[in-house]
Amino acid sequence: MKTAVIPGSFDPITSGHLDIIKRASVLFDKVVIGIAKNFIKDPMFTLEERVELVGIATGDIANVSVEPFDSLLVEFATAKKAHVIVKGLRAVSDFEHEFQMAQLNRELNREVETIFMMASPKYAYLSSSAVREIAEYGGDVKGLVPSVVEEALKKKTSS
Amino acid sequence: MKTAVIPGSFDPITSGHLDIIKRASVLFDKVVIGIAKNFIKDPMFTLEERVELVGIATGDIANVSVEPFDSLLVEFATAKKAHVIVKGLRAVSDFEHEFQMAQLNRELNREVETIFMMASPKYAYLSSSAVREIAEYGGDVKGLVPSVVEEALKKKTSS
Amino acid sequence: MKTAVIPGSFDPITSGHLDIIKRASVLFDKVVIGIAKNFIKDPMFTLEERVELVGIATGDIANVSVEPFDSLLVEFATAKKAHVIVKGLRAVSDFEHEFQMAQLNRELNREVETIFMMASPKYAYLSSSAVREIAEYGGDVKGLVPSVVEEALKKKTSS
Amino acid sequence: MKTAVIPGSFDPITSGHLDIIKRASVLFDKVVIGIAKNFIKDPMFTLEERVELVGIATGDIANVSVEPFDSLLVEFATAKKAHVIVKGLRAVSDFEHEFQMAQLNRELNREVETIFMMASPKYAYLSSSAVREIAEYGGDVKGLVPSVVEEALKKKTSS
Amino acid sequence: MKTAVIPGSFDPITSGHLDIIKRASVLFDKVVIGIAKNFIKDPMFTLEERVELVGIATGDIANVSVEPFDSLLVEFATAKKAHVIVKGLRAVSDFEHEFQMAQLNRELNREVETIFMMASPKYAYLSSSAVREIAEYGGDVKGLVPSVVEEALKKKTSS
Amino acid sequence: MKTAVIPGSFDPITSGHLDIIKRASVLFDKVVIGIAKNFIKDPMFTLEERVELVGIATGDIANVSVEPFDSLLVEFATAKKAHVIVKGLRAVSDFEHEFQMAQLNRELNREVETIFMMASPKYAYLSSSAVREIAEYGGDVKGLVPSVVEEALKKKTSS
Repeated sequence: MKTAVIPGSFDPITSGHLDIIKRASVLFDKVVIGIAKNFIKDPMFTLEERVELVGIATGDIANVSVEPFDSLLVEFATAKKAHVIVKGLRAVSDFEHEFQMAQLNRELNREVETIFMMASPKYAYLSSSAVREIAEYGGDVKGLVPSVVEEALKKKTSS
Repeated sequence: MKTAVIPGSFDPITSGHLDIIKRASVLFDKVVIGIAKNFIKDPMFTLEERVELVGIATGDIANVSVEPFDSLLVEFATAKKAHVIVKGLRAVSDFEHEFQMAQLNRELNREVETIFMMASPKYAYLSSSAVREIAEYGGDVKGLVPSVVEEALKKKTSS
Repeated sequence: MKTAVIPGSFDPITSGHLDIIKRASVLFDKVVIGIAKNFIKDPMFTLEERVELVGIATGDIANVSVEPFDSLLVEFATAKKAHVIVKGLRAVSDFEHEFQMAQLNRELNREVETIFMMASPKYAYLSSSAVREIAEYGGDVKGLVPSVVEEALKKKTSS
Repeated sequence: MKTAVIPGSFDPITSGHLDIIKRASVLFDKVVIGIAKNFIKDPMFTLEERVELVGIATGDIANVSVEPFDSLLVEFATAKKAHVIVKGLRAVSDFEHEFQMAQLNRELNREVETIFMMASPKYAYLSSSAVREIAEYGGDVKGLVPSVVEEALKKKTSS
Repeated sequence: MKTAVIPGSFDPITSGHLDIIKRASVLFDKVVIGIAKNFIKDPMFTLEERVELVGIATGDIANVSVEPFDSLLVEFATAKKAHVIVKGLRAVSDFEHEFQMAQLNRELNREVETIFMMASPKYAYLSSSAVREIAEYGGDVKGLVPSVVEEALKKKTSS
Repeated sequence: MKTAVIPGSFDPITSGHLDIIKRASVLFDKVVIGIAKNFIKDPMFTLEERVELVGIATGDIANVSVEPFDSLLVEFATAKKAHVIVKGLRAVSDFEHEFQMAQLNRELNREVETIFMMASPKYAYLSSSAVREIAEYGGDVKGLVPSVVEEALKKKTSS
């Protein structure tokens, strides 16, 4: 059985993330989404909120589960018995950074392999930070995020 | 009549910005420079100072005006009846980021088109942050910024 | 009146080219598509065929015309009284090459400005060479090219 | 059962190719190496020689097989009942080109997913064309290619 | 006599930095490592600690010395009578940033030339920030940093 | 004594090449320009013509000499007792290719180090192939190449 980990901060999960998760869930027997406690400073959503939102957004994909983590990524992958880390790529600058992270992780643990999947063109422009900025200015995020996140953003930014 | 918006934080405006503004003013009937309130944290110059400095630096170009904005860029462009956003590019990494922003803005409003102009080679190395760093160390910014900014930097860094 | 030139080899014109042409035709009063005689070696379509196919594909856009050229691009632009060259960009590697060409053209003639427009995400993967390869293997190019080109490719590859 | 295709021209197979093949053979149940007839012009080795060399070099990996192909890549993958295409990446410029090909292939067949694996740092500089150039000048390719290729290059360049 | 300056924040010095320093010490008569006071915010190690660690790590290279600086880089280089600034490059994104800095420094002082050396492949994934992150999570940094830094990281992260 | 090799095809030498050669001649005791027989197919100028043109263009720089070579670059460098190869960089795509070549050359011979110098901004757009294209269309190459090359291009393209 092949297990893959998809790590990220998911603050919040976007339609682009969801697309990668769905496509990865076809390639591997089990997919664990690892939500990093510390990848970003001052997140808009708490770790608990992010775990909950990703859980609801991916609730209909049978072989996907969601967990927070607060350790080196390779250690999390090892603890989950995953031999693969899946990263979505949108652009060249993503690629460079992810490439270095992948090399470093491989140096730390040869048993864990990182593979890359490309974002669908229609989501190539999309990022969590762009979504947060649009929401903060009261813009429309319909289609950019799962509907549960759309609701959560409304509550968060109206408060 | 074609109106273009040139957005930025202009903290401060450099000779590279001014070059792009001049060249864009030839291509379009009207150019509105939009100075973003929130693009950067802890600006060296206040929003009011930045609007004033850009206004003086571009004072001799008849079809250019300057305004602050605190909204999504596409909303500012729409409010100004502009169908074009002009961005200057210096390097590949500029390009990637701007490309994603342009796609996102197009997703938010199909009526607004982003076009890119390249920086002149002699200004390709120049950025507001480099200018701030040189000024803070007491270096010479002559030629790197309009003369009104040179004066303003002297006052700002001697205080 | 602002005239723009859109140069290329168009061997053959793709849906991505057509998208850029349409969007540029909104920004400028007149658009001249310049089909280069010598940009590529051993084209699939003759210069005459390419001029004809682009002409038919853009026939319903009032302010667009098509012409072959066999000179330096800046000279063609000058002959057409165009002050703007429009180039579509799909990727970083496009950008680098086009950037150098634009600088060079500006060095040759300061009166001609190059601006860049980004390809729509759904056409970002598309190129004339990819279209030719698919057609040569008998693959389906529907949607990738204007319908007149689809027909032309069938004739060309069945012969 | 998950089958992956690894396509290329392999003119000749390098130690970098072999590293990717080995790592992919751990992630998937079956790996088919597809050797393209037409990716490059004037290959140093004939299609038959390339199939034979890759076959010998990968002979000790149980779940790997080798086949030539002369069709669109997605058609070859479909014929092999593969849902995954694996591409090795060494550099940003690889990435851009492969990214566009992957988007295009996905457009042609949604059932086939392309994933990317990064070259090991020690092989990041290595390419078939560099190997050919070194061999043609009588340089030492030991370690850069499987030993069977080392022998084949000696015969080829001494003749 | 040719003197080169190698600037950086070295928070902390890695095996990749050390590799570049050793290789540069062969090319120039004298190498001065300049440790910048202000390149980064909230360093893990104080300026004094960084100077000491780099000094110990490079103690066996006869023509290398270490000094802190708190000025524009070109002024530091001039004060050291250095005509060359040496920068190590790992990736394209390094390159772009360093390229702009080099142009700017050359604009500020034509007498100082920046040259670039590439990181060894085995260190291409390595950065001070990656080392800090691994150490903070209690990971193993053996081989990634000089042994004196390994010790210092243990003390720093256990306190 | 430090000797550096600057390799290239120089078909023909441009003002950008000359700028790099002059700057390198300040950093090293001796500079050997190596003109490759086989880097490009169908050169405009013969190997003998290229050696002569580079020789005249660099005739006033005391420590520079010119030689053709037809071997692996590292072997040429070793034969010239050079420990340094100098490459000029204009753009990211240059960088990637040169980076791979440098790694490969280092793999072939650890004694030879490649260093990179950046093109001056005013020559960043310039390449031999652009010069050839302009000349072939009868355009003005004044300033883009040394005057001896300007003359040679006129003869070559008028014949």
